Amino acid sequence: MKELKIGMKDSMARTVTAEDVEMFAKVSGDCNPVHLDEAFAAKSMFGRRIAHGIISAGYISAVLGNQLPGQGTIYLGQSLKFLKPVYLGDTITTTVEIIAANEEKHIYTLKTECVNQLGKVVTTGEATVLYK
Amino acid sequence: MKELKIGMKDSMARTVTAEDVEMFAKVSGDCNPVHLDEAFAAKSMFGRRIAHGIISAGYISAVLGNQLPGQGTIYLGQSLKFLKPVYLGDTITTTVEIIAANEEKHIYTLKTECVNQLGKVVTTGEATVLYK
Repeated sequence: MKELKIGMKDSMARTVTAEDVEMFAKVSGDCNPVHLDEAFAAKSMFGRRIAHGIISAGYISAVLGNQLPGQGTIYLGQSLKFLKPVYLGDTITTTVEIIAANEEKHIYTLKTECVNQLGKVVTTGEATVLYK
Repeated sequence: MKELKIGMKDSMARTVTAEDVEMFAKVSGDCNPVHLDEAFAAKSMFGRRIAHGIISAGYISAVLGNQLPGQGTIYLGQSLKFLKPVYLGDTITTTVEIIAANEEKHIYTLKTECVNQLGKVVTTGEATVLYK
Protein backbone atom coordinates (compact mmCIF):
# COMPACT_ATOMS: atom_id res chain seq x y z
CA MET A 1 0.00 0.00 0.00
CA LYS A 2 1.25 3.48 -0.76
CA GLU A 3 1.66 6.20 1.85
CA LEU A 4 -0.97 8.90 1.39
CA LYS A 5 -0.31 12.57 2.08
CA ILE A 6 -2.45 15.68 1.82
CA GLY A 7 -1.81 17.39 -1.52
CA MET A 8 -1.26 14.19 -3.52
CA LYS A 9 -3.27 14.27 -6.73
CA ASP A 10 -3.83 12.22 -9.86
CA SER A 11 -6.01 12.49 -12.95
CA MET A 12 -7.39 10.66 -15.99
CA ALA A 13 -8.87 11.91 -19.28
CA ARG A 14 -11.67 10.14 -21.16
CA THR A 15 -13.84 11.05 -24.12
CA VAL A 16 -17.56 10.28 -23.71
CA THR A 17 -18.89 8.30 -26.66
CA ALA A 18 -22.46 7.63 -27.79
CA GLU A 19 -21.82 3.96 -27.01
CA ASP A 20 -20.84 4.87 -23.42
CA VAL A 21 -24.10 6.75 -22.94
CA GLU A 22 -26.12 3.87 -24.41
CA MET A 23 -24.34 1.31 -22.20
CA PHE A 24 -24.88 3.46 -19.11
CA ALA A 25 -28.58 3.74 -19.97
CA LYS A 26 -28.75 -0.06 -20.07
CA VAL A 27 -26.86 -0.51 -16.79
CA SER A 28 -28.80 2.12 -14.85
CA GLY A 29 -32.20 2.03 -16.52
CA ASP A 30 -31.97 5.81 -17.05
CA CYS A 31 -33.40 6.13 -20.56
CA ASN A 32 -34.15 9.86 -20.43
CA PRO A 33 -34.46 10.93 -24.11
CA VAL A 34 -32.16 13.92 -23.53
CA HIS A 35 -29.39 11.28 -23.38
CA LEU A 36 -30.59 8.94 -26.12
CA ASP A 37 -32.81 10.73 -28.65
CA GLU A 38 -31.07 13.31 -30.87
CA ALA A 39 -34.35 14.87 -32.10
CA PHE A 40 -35.70 15.23 -28.55
CA ALA A 41 -32.38 16.61 -27.26
CA ALA A 42 -32.24 19.16 -30.11
CA LYS A 43 -35.45 20.73 -28.77
CA SER A 44 -34.31 20.65 -25.12
CA MET A 45 -32.46 23.44 -23.29
CA PHE A 46 -29.21 21.59 -24.09
CA GLY A 47 -29.62 21.65 -27.89
CA ARG A 48 -28.07 18.20 -28.34
CA ARG A 49 -27.58 14.89 -26.54
CA ILE A 50 -25.86 15.04 -23.17
CA ALA A 51 -24.22 12.31 -21.10
CA HIS A 52 -25.75 11.15 -17.82
CA GLY A 53 -24.23 13.21 -14.98
CA ILE A 54 -23.44 10.02 -13.09
CA ILE A 55 -20.99 8.97 -15.83
CA SER A 56 -18.63 11.65 -14.49
CA ALA A 57 -19.04 10.07 -11.06
CA GLY A 58 -17.94 6.82 -12.69
CA TYR A 59 -14.75 8.57 -13.83
CA ILE A 60 -14.12 9.71 -10.25
CA SER A 61 -14.61 6.12 -9.07
CA ALA A 62 -12.11 4.98 -11.72
CA VAL A 63 -9.37 7.41 -10.65
CA LEU A 64 -9.90 6.49 -6.98
CA GLY A 65 -9.89 2.75 -7.65
CA ASN A 66 -7.15 2.61 -10.29
CA GLN A 67 -4.78 5.43 -9.39
CA LEU A 68 -5.14 7.34 -6.10
CA PRO A 69 -5.37 5.74 -3.64
CA GLY A 70 -5.59 2.82 -6.14
CA GLN A 71 -6.29 -0.88 -5.72
CA GLY A 72 -7.73 -1.72 -2.32
CA THR A 73 -9.60 1.57 -1.96
CA ILE A 74 -12.97 1.24 -0.23
CA TYR A 75 -15.37 3.91 -1.44
CA LEU A 76 -17.34 5.31 1.51
CA GLY A 77 -19.03 8.36 0.08
CA GLN A 78 -19.21 11.01 -2.60
CA SER A 79 -20.80 14.42 -3.01
CA LEU A 80 -21.48 15.70 -6.51
CA LYS A 81 -22.53 19.01 -8.03
CA PHE A 82 -23.39 18.87 -11.71
CA LEU A 83 -22.40 22.38 -12.82
CA LYS A 84 -22.49 22.06 -16.60
CA PRO A 85 -23.72 19.47 -19.09
CA VAL A 86 -21.34 16.93 -20.61
CA TYR A 87 -21.97 16.52 -24.34
CA LEU A 88 -21.23 13.41 -26.37
CA GLY A 89 -17.69 13.72 -27.69
CA ASP A 90 -16.48 15.87 -24.77
CA THR A 91 -13.15 14.91 -23.24
CA ILE A 92 -13.38 15.00 -19.47
CA THR A 93 -10.30 15.24 -17.29
CA THR A 94 -11.03 13.96 -13.79
CA THR A 95 -8.70 14.96 -10.97
CA VAL A 96 -8.71 13.79 -7.37
CA GLU A 97 -6.63 15.44 -4.65
CA ILE A 98 -6.23 14.41 -1.02
CA ILE A 99 -7.44 17.31 1.13
CA ALA A 100 -7.87 15.64 4.54
CA ALA A 101 -6.47 12.54 6.22
CA ASN A 102 -7.47 10.69 9.36
CA GLU A 103 -4.45 8.39 9.55
CA GLU A 104 -5.67 6.62 12.69
CA LYS A 105 -8.91 5.52 10.99
CA HIS A 106 -7.31 5.32 7.52
CA ILE A 107 -10.04 7.59 6.14
CA TYR A 108 -9.18 10.19 3.51
CA THR A 109 -11.15 13.00 1.88
CA LEU A 110 -10.39 13.93 -1.70
CA LYS A 111 -11.52 16.91 -3.75
CA THR A 112 -12.91 15.53 -7.02
CA GLU A 113 -13.25 17.62 -10.15
CA CYS A 114 -14.22 16.87 -13.76
CA VAL A 115 -13.20 19.48 -16.35
CA ASN A 116 -14.11 19.49 -20.05
CA GLN A 117 -11.86 20.19 -23.04
CA LEU A 118 -12.73 23.92 -22.79
CA GLY A 119 -11.39 24.06 -19.23
CA LYS A 120 -14.87 24.36 -17.70
CA VAL A 121 -15.63 22.45 -14.49
CA VAL A 122 -18.60 20.20 -15.24
CA THR A 123 -18.77 18.20 -12.00
CA THR A 124 -17.27 18.91 -8.61
CA GLY A 125 -17.47 17.36 -5.16
CA GLU A 126 -15.66 15.35 -2.52
CA ALA A 127 -14.97 11.66 -2.06
CA THR A 128 -14.44 9.81 1.20
CA VAL A 129 -12.43 6.59 1.10
CA LEU A 130 -10.96 3.98 3.42
CA TYR A 131 -7.46 2.85 2.48
CA LYS A 132 -5.27 0.68 4.65
CA MET B 1 -45.29 18.92 -15.82
CA LYS B 2 -46.58 17.35 -12.63
CA GLU B 3 -47.08 19.25 -9.39
CA LEU B 4 -44.49 18.22 -6.82
CA LYS B 5 -45.24 18.05 -3.10
CA ILE B 6 -43.17 17.12 -0.08
CA GLY B 7 -43.75 13.47 0.79
CA MET B 8 -44.20 12.24 -2.79
CA LYS B 9 -42.12 9.14 -3.42
CA ASP B 10 -41.44 6.58 -6.11
CA SER B 11 -39.19 3.55 -6.50
CA MET B 12 -37.71 1.04 -8.95
CA ALA B 13 -36.16 -2.42 -8.44
CA ARG B 14 -33.30 -3.81 -10.54
CA THR B 15 -31.07 -6.84 -10.28
CA VAL B 16 -27.34 -6.20 -10.84
CA THR B 17 -25.90 -8.60 -13.41
CA ALA B 18 -22.29 -9.47 -14.23
CA GLU B 19 -22.89 -7.89 -17.65
CA ASP B 20 -23.97 -4.63 -15.98
CA VAL B 21 -20.77 -4.53 -13.94
CA GLU B 22 -18.65 -5.27 -17.03
CA MET B 23 -20.43 -2.56 -19.06
CA PHE B 24 -20.02 -0.04 -16.25
CA ALA B 25 -16.29 -0.87 -16.08
CA LYS B 26 -16.04 -0.07 -19.81
CA VAL B 27 -18.01 3.18 -19.56
CA SER B 28 -16.17 4.50 -16.50
CA GLY B 29 -12.73 2.95 -16.89
CA ASP B 30 -13.03 1.57 -13.33
CA CYS B 31 -11.51 -1.89 -13.77
CA ASN B 32 -10.84 -2.60 -10.10
CA PRO B 33 -10.46 -6.41 -9.87
CA VAL B 34 -12.84 -6.59 -6.91
CA HIS B 35 -15.56 -5.89 -9.50
CA LEU B 36 -14.24 -7.98 -12.39
CA ASP B 37 -12.01 -10.81 -11.15
CA GLU B 38 -13.72 -13.60 -9.19
CA ALA B 39 -10.45 -15.09 -7.89
CA PHE B 40 -9.19 -11.70 -6.68
CA ALA B 41 -12.56 -10.82 -5.13
CA ALA B 42 -12.67 -14.18 -3.31
CA LYS B 43 -9.53 -13.17 -1.40
CA SER B 44 -10.77 -9.63 -0.67
CA MET B 45 -12.72 -8.52 2.42
CA PHE B 46 -15.92 -8.94 0.36
CA GLY B 47 -15.41 -12.64 -0.45
CA ARG B 48 -16.86 -12.33 -3.95
CA ARG B 49 -17.35 -9.84 -6.75
CA ILE B 50 -19.16 -6.61 -5.88
CA ALA B 51 -20.77 -4.01 -8.10
CA HIS B 52 -19.33 -0.52 -8.45
CA GLY B 53 -20.95 1.75 -5.84
CA ILE B 54 -21.72 4.30 -8.52
CA ILE B 55 -24.09 1.83 -10.23
CA SER B 56 -26.53 2.47 -7.37
CA ALA B 57 -26.16 6.19 -8.12
CA GLY B 58 -27.16 5.33 -11.68
CA TYR B 59 -30.35 3.76 -10.32
CA ILE B 60 -31.10 6.97 -8.40
CA SER B 61 -30.56 8.94 -11.60
CA ALA B 62 -32.97 6.58 -13.38
CA VAL B 63 -35.77 7.02 -10.83
CA LEU B 64 -35.33 10.80 -10.88
CA GLY B 65 -35.24 11.02 -14.68
CA ASN B 66 -37.92 8.43 -15.47
CA GLN B 67 -40.36 8.59 -12.57
CA LEU B 68 -40.10 11.37 -9.95
CA PRO B 69 -39.92 14.14 -10.94
CA GLY B 70 -39.58 12.38 -14.36
CA GLN B 71 -38.83 13.66 -17.83
CA GLY B 72 -37.46 17.20 -17.85
CA THR B 73 -35.66 16.83 -14.51
CA ILE B 74 -32.32 18.65 -14.37
CA TYR B 75 -29.95 16.91 -11.98
CA LEU B 76 -28.09 19.50 -9.91
CA GLY B 77 -26.40 17.42 -7.23
CA GLN B 78 -26.21 14.20 -5.26
CA SER B 79 -24.68 13.05 -2.00
CA LEU B 80 -23.93 9.36 -1.54
CA LYS B 81 -22.92 7.15 1.36
CA PHE B 82 -21.97 3.61 0.41
CA LEU B 83 -22.99 1.73 3.54
CA LYS B 84 -22.82 -1.89 2.38
CA PRO B 85 -21.47 -3.69 -0.68
CA VAL B 86 -23.77 -4.64 -3.57
CA TYR B 87 -23.05 -8.16 -4.80
CA LEU B 88 -23.68 -9.45 -8.31
CA GLY B 89 -27.19 -10.86 -8.39
CA ASP B 90 -28.50 -8.53 -5.67
CA THR B 91 -31.85 -6.90 -6.34
CA ILE B 92 -31.71 -3.24 -5.39
CA THR B 93 -34.85 -1.23 -4.73
CA THR B 94 -34.17 2.48 -5.15
CA THR B 95 -36.60 4.94 -3.58
CA VAL B 96 -36.64 8.72 -3.89
CA GLU B 97 -38.82 10.96 -1.72
CA ILE B 98 -39.29 14.72 -1.90
CA ILE B 99 -38.19 16.18 1.45
CA ALA B 100 -37.81 19.89 0.62
CA ALA B 101 -39.18 22.20 -2.04
CA ASN B 102 -38.24 25.72 -3.11
CA GLU B 103 -41.21 26.37 -5.36
CA GLU B 104 -40.05 29.84 -6.36
CA LYS B 105 -36.75 28.50 -7.72
CA HIS B 106 -38.26 25.13 -8.76
CA ILE B 107 -35.53 23.33 -6.81
CA TYR B 108 -36.36 20.16 -4.90
CA THR B 109 -34.41 17.97 -2.48
CA LEU B 110 -35.09 14.24 -2.42
CA LYS B 111 -33.98 11.59 0.04
CA THR B 112 -32.48 8.75 -2.02
CA GLU B 113 -32.11 5.24 -0.70
CA CYS B 114 -31.05 1.91 -2.23
CA VAL B 115 -32.05 -1.23 -0.32
CA ASN B 116 -31.06 -4.82 -1.13
CA GLN B 117 -33.26 -7.93 -1.18
CA LEU B 118 -32.45 -8.52 2.51
CA GLY B 119 -33.89 -5.12 3.46
CA LYS B 120 -30.45 -3.63 4.17
CA VAL B 121 -29.72 -0.06 3.07
CA VAL B 122 -26.69 -0.22 0.77
CA THR B 123 -26.56 3.40 -0.43
CA THR B 124 -28.16 6.51 0.99
CA GLY B 125 -28.01 10.22 0.28
CA GLU B 126 -29.84 13.23 -1.10
CA ALA B 127 -30.47 14.51 -4.59
CA THR B 128 -31.06 18.10 -5.67
CA VAL B 129 -32.99 18.70 -8.86
CA LEU B 130 -34.48 21.53 -10.91
CA TYR B 131 -37.94 20.81 -12.32
CA LYS B 132 -40.17 23.39 -13.97
